[in-house]
Amino acid sequence: MKKEIPITPKIKIGIVGGTGYTGAELLRILVRHPHSTLAVITSRAEAGLPVAQLFPHLRGQIDLQFTAPDDNALSDCDVVFFATPNGTAMQSAPQLLDRGVRVIDLAADFRLKDPAVWAQWYGMPHACPDVLAEAVYGLPELNRAAIRQARLIANPGCYPTAVTLGFLPLLEAQVIDPNWLIADAKSGASGAGRKAETGLLLAEIGESFKAYAVTGHRHAPEIAQTLGQLGSGAVGLTFVPHLLPMIRGIEATLYARLTDDNCDLEQLFAKRYATETFVDFMPNGQPDTRSVRGSNMCRVAVARQGTSSVVIVQSVIDNLVKGAAGQAVQNMNLMFDWDETLGLDALALLP
Amino acid sequence: MKKEIPITPKIKIGIVGGTGYTGAELLRILVRHPHSTLAVITSRAEAGLPVAQLFPHLRGQIDLQFTAPDDNALSDCDVVFFATPNGTAMQSAPQLLDRGVRVIDLAADFRLKDPAVWAQWYGMPHACPDVLAEAVYGLPELNRAAIRQARLIANPGCYPTAVTLGFLPLLEAQVIDPNWLIADAKSGASGAGRKAETGLLLAEIGESFKAYAVTGHRHAPEIAQTLGQLGSGAVGLTFVPHLLPMIRGIEATLYARLTDDNCDLEQLFAKRYATETFVDFMPNGQPDTRSVRGSNMCRVAVARQGTSSVVIVQSVIDNLVKGAAGQAVQNMNLMFDWDETLGLDALALLP
Amino acid sequence: MKKEIPITPKIKIGIVGGTGYTGAELLRILVRHPHSTLAVITSRAEAGLPVAQLFPHLRGQIDLQFTAPDDNALSDCDVVFFATPNGTAMQSAPQLLDRGVRVIDLAADFRLKDPAVWAQWYGMPHACPDVLAEAVYGLPELNRAAIRQARLIANPGCYPTAVTLGFLPLLEAQVIDPNWLIADAKSGASGAGRKAETGLLLAEIGESFKAYAVTGHRHAPEIAQTLGQLGSGAVGLTFVPHLLPMIRGIEATLYARLTDDNCDLEQLFAKRYATETFVDFMPNGQPDTRSVRGSNMCRVAVARQGTSSVVIVQSVIDNLVKGAAGQAVQNMNLMFDWDETLGLDALALLP
Amino acid sequence: MKKEIPITPKIKIGIVGGTGYTGAELLRILVRHPHSTLAVITSRAEAGLPVAQLFPHLRGQIDLQFTAPDDNALSDCDVVFFATPNGTAMQSAPQLLDRGVRVIDLAADFRLKDPAVWAQWYGMPHACPDVLAEAVYGLPELNRAAIRQARLIANPGCYPTAVTLGFLPLLEAQVIDPNWLIADAKSGASGAGRKAETGLLLAEIGESFKAYAVTGHRHAPEIAQTLGQLGSGAVGLTFVPHLLPMIRGIEATLYARLTDDNCDLEQLFAKRYATETFVDFMPNGQPDTRSVRGSNMCRVAVARQGTSSVVIVQSVIDNLVKGAAGQAVQNMNLMFDWDETLGLDALALLP
Repeated sequence: MKKEIPITPKIKIGIVGGTGYTGAELLRILVRHPHSTLAVITSRAEAGLPVAQLFPHLRGQIDLQFTAPDDNALSDCDVVFFATPNGTAMQSAPQLLDRGVRVIDLAADFRLKDPAVWAQWYGMPHACPDVLAEAVYGLPELNRAAIRQARLIANPGCYPTAVTLGFLPLLEAQVIDPNWLIADAKSGASGAGRKAETGLLLAEIGESFKAYAVTGHRHAPEIAQTLGQLGSGAVGLTFVPHLLPMIRGIEATLYARLTDDNCDLEQLFAKRYATETFVDFMPNGQPDTRSVRGSNMCRVAVARQGTSSVVIVQSVIDNLVKGAAGQAVQNMNLMFDWDETLGLDALALLP
Repeated sequence: MKKEIPITPKIKIGIVGGTGYTGAELLRILVRHPHSTLAVITSRAEAGLPVAQLFPHLRGQIDLQFTAPDDNALSDCDVVFFATPNGTAMQSAPQLLDRGVRVIDLAADFRLKDPAVWAQWYGMPHACPDVLAEAVYGLPELNRAAIRQARLIANPGCYPTAVTLGFLPLLEAQVIDPNWLIADAKSGASGAGRKAETGLLLAEIGESFKAYAVTGHRHAPEIAQTLGQLGSGAVGLTFVPHLLPMIRGIEATLYARLTDDNCDLEQLFAKRYATETFVDFMPNGQPDTRSVRGSNMCRVAVARQGTSSVVIVQSVIDNLVKGAAGQAVQNMNLMFDWDETLGLDALALLP
Repeated sequence: MKKEIPITPKIKIGIVGGTGYTGAELLRILVRHPHSTLAVITSRAEAGLPVAQLFPHLRGQIDLQFTAPDDNALSDCDVVFFATPNGTAMQSAPQLLDRGVRVIDLAADFRLKDPAVWAQWYGMPHACPDVLAEAVYGLPELNRAAIRQARLIANPGCYPTAVTLGFLPLLEAQVIDPNWLIADAKSGASGAGRKAETGLLLAEIGESFKAYAVTGHRHAPEIAQTLGQLGSGAVGLTFVPHLLPMIRGIEATLYARLTDDNCDLEQLFAKRYATETFVDFMPNGQPDTRSVRGSNMCRVAVARQGTSSVVIVQSVIDNLVKGAAGQAVQNMNLMFDWDETLGLDALALLP
Repeated sequence: MKKEIPITPKIKIGIVGGTGYTGAELLRILVRHPHSTLAVITSRAEAGLPVAQLFPHLRGQIDLQFTAPDDNALSDCDVVFFATPNGTAMQSAPQLLDRGVRVIDLAADFRLKDPAVWAQWYGMPHACPDVLAEAVYGLPELNRAAIRQARLIANPGCYPTAVTLGFLPLLEAQVIDPNWLIADAKSGASGAGRKAETGLLLAEIGESFKAYAVTGHRHAPEIAQTLGQLGSGAVGLTFVPHLLPMIRGIEATLYARLTDDNCDLEQLFAKRYATETFVDFMPNGQPDTRSVRGSNMCRVAVARQGTSSVVIVQSVIDNLVKGAAGQAVQNMNLMFDWDETLGLDALALLP
């Protein structure tokens, strides 16, 4: 069951877990969204605190206070975004869906179709496998039609968004060996969340760089699941993330082995993304993360080195926007049958 | 003479010197301004280059190419912004004004009322002292009425904007000794412009900090000129700028000696800025530059240390927005009798 | 009572609280100190962990593990450094001193001569006022003779080191009004310590800048106490710290009112610091923090703006070296009657 | 012909091109080298300028001025380092060698054995192919014996150092497919040199990240040449560099296909580097660049993801030290038959 889309264009929006970075980004975007009424913003830790006190850039824009999570208040919303730690949304989603609320989870709870894989990588059993089955993976460039019909969106992870959009055209066209995919991805520190951890201090990670989760990262099965559905069959993926000494941005350099030496790569990418508002294919490009900073754009480029059969793709996004909150709003726009770009027209901040 | 404000809400805008950072910011803002048609964007060095090639974040948003400066094309505009080095606008402004074009100079050419002071600090004689006399200093919080009537706006410097808005309430209320003003200001590197100089390389100024122009900076006479008009008489100002290892943002910490020990400083600032959309007074605040990053907001706070008679003001802006391009558009909105906030509603990017 | 300085030049060193940044810096310096044998490095939280596992840059250099604090082991040392939170050293110092161990506290426990002032600013009563009375403030450029004789050193705070060395020549020569001292100081984030706090995350403070503790900072009474002893009498000091988006470095811009207009400031500073190895006076300088990064040097410069009577001093240090661990080792060298520069000859890392 | 190694341990050192970052690093290291007398430091642009004026961190350490390049003065040295742009050293090396001077070139002039490959990648013919033939590639971990005997050292590139040390054990042991090597390398901006270029401004590359030279970088043939000599035959290498928003550090993540599934990778690396002072193999490690910042250490780790046959190596260096000046001094130590670690014992600066 889904609530009727109100005749008035304003819908009531709830955000669970509004004190983290994806929560802050949702607020920044939704405050300027023409159809948005922010009704509920929850936080266990900060209940009672005015939102604008935690986020001074929102002073004068939001009158709300954070509230403790409240099922009634959330059920009263038309859509609820979960900007919470993994394992949270799945506790509440079934009840909200039953009340006709649409749900968009920015965490991983509904991304992995196989509950066993979820349990293996996230260390807990899935709380609602039935509901898991109906969740739609919220990558519009791939699942637009299904997103329109969905009640429940699994918003993709940040790294998966960048990596998937990079490999997509190649796997769909079946021009690469799906067994040898390498994704070397680098992210700014906001991707790790607003957590009081020594390993995220400026004094620890500023002016430094490193790989992490080298033996395996949770985003790998998510990426592999999606890429495996693209027409080239199951994939063999090596995914290695790295931590950049900056706040926002993901760049993924992707390597694959071209099986069709005559493939016009530029043409392939240009064509696949010609009508995608939020994927900008840059011919002969070397996209930098700053060119998409604060915007919902993903910018991609593709290259070969001479006659080498290795294809190199570069994919950049803002991890908090196209990698999280922006994509969530893009999905909301689709679910409510609005212009997909509503609230998402901010240009990148450059320099 | 001024051109009639067109009945159609779209005006034709020219930008001279569109390849620097203030030029890039003007483009970013004007692309989203409801009444803006970008007609001409000039650059001697990059004539012929598509704007979006230099500024990838504007791909798909601007079809224009940079063109060599052309008086006819510029005269065809309703307003021309000069985002050029000091000494450029004054060469062209008179002719443009004669043709009925409104002019907004983001450089210093028209800021100093006394041509002798201009010559002393900028090392060149003033090209049009007559025109200089009619220029209005484009700080809306101070000169709103005059800006509405103006043909020619001297857009304030970045440091002067932050420092002036900080001292303003105190000098207007005459509660401080005007002879002992200290402004310790710190700016991100974009304030120095997009210039190929060793001293601006990341490898030179990253992870480092220093004062510069300690024996005197050109913005000092500009600040002193404005502060001297506020009711407390001529001022004695010590202004010392510093270079921050980041891209955007100015924070100015201001020190003055309180002459009225009973002054309710919080009340004074709150009242003075109560109706100013773009100045946010933060009670008991410690504003950070990120809270205004990418937005046209100036955020201020005021404090004393116990019973000390020293007043401490903190003033933060984004040097490229409220310190340059945003303020220029704010002035344009006033000149054309539009809502002052048009095109300037972007919230800061935080984190 | 003090232990005899061993005939063999190797002394046994203990470090309490070795897991923070000042602890890490002590290790880095002492590992290369010719007379140092690191005997004990304590940490409650990390007891049992090999030091080189927490500090990979020390792999192969230190075989020790962190141990829980142990009075016997510490008493067996010739000198013990406390790199602990405020309030820790004063619990243990008396016992260690009784056992003949020399103590150098890098925290604030012994800096403020008046226990009432300590209690007011640090929120706890002083645990050993008797011992407090004999502590020597460890600023060699001021207290060299007393440091040589001392059993107990209060290592100065980072900001106080930079500010004091900046004002020193002026107050000693009595050429400024001691009632109007302004210190606008800026520090990299390592100065706040290796603490899991949201406010120190790269995603919170990167690419941003702000003042903090504007209504009063604990280092102010410490600075005022020292400056008040220099010959100009008690001082009126306004001290405002700021947080820089970088790891290391402090720059303090100091403002004072010159009472002797004929004072040759360059000469005054050059002379005062001519024989000080670790204070480099830079004629007409604009010192940057990177020029002292990783070194024990303090670099200062002085200026006036035209005929203004405001004196402007710039003072830069590395907050972890001359502002903490380097100065502590400098003090140790003096206490043990060694060349003051032992272990401290590392040049700054530039770029 | 080579000059006799002086009986006195002090040799005369010349540095050509002393104003860049590798020149600055050579100075910083050599000032503390027990056998070094800095005799000549040349710079065309800055002739006459005191070295310490350009490099304030060397104030009080170096009395020399930069001088215009002078063959006689250079010929009077025992060893000359070229820290110059590509194509410079090869103009002067033959004459210096004839005069018995040892030459260490930090640029690429003597790295590529085939003059045709040099010409193809560096856009100029080789000036002295005869001399090229005797040059020894200065990677001590590979060519120690030859370096000891050499008159002329081709100091390896920064990226090649990190990448080669990472692949070395695998190719020597012939446990990977040499045709499928991928090197995703990331460097701080100092690697691009101290050049007044817009693309290196903090305001351009701060808080951003991107790949560059994606279609082919000059370091690729250098790496391939070295890797091709290790026992596994000619290699197929895909090398993609990226620009990090920081000053120093290179991290290279290397991918290869394991052909021997039973290979004990940890053991292989541990054994190969057990006796190498400047390569630290970190079991199960995730090395960060800061752990080698300012030091001559290369730190490596190796991993697999489950049963995947992809081997992942992480290799970190400081691009200016082990990637340039430190390695050059390491080579000099070998050439003069000294302890290889002289002058190179500085620990990394952490945090």
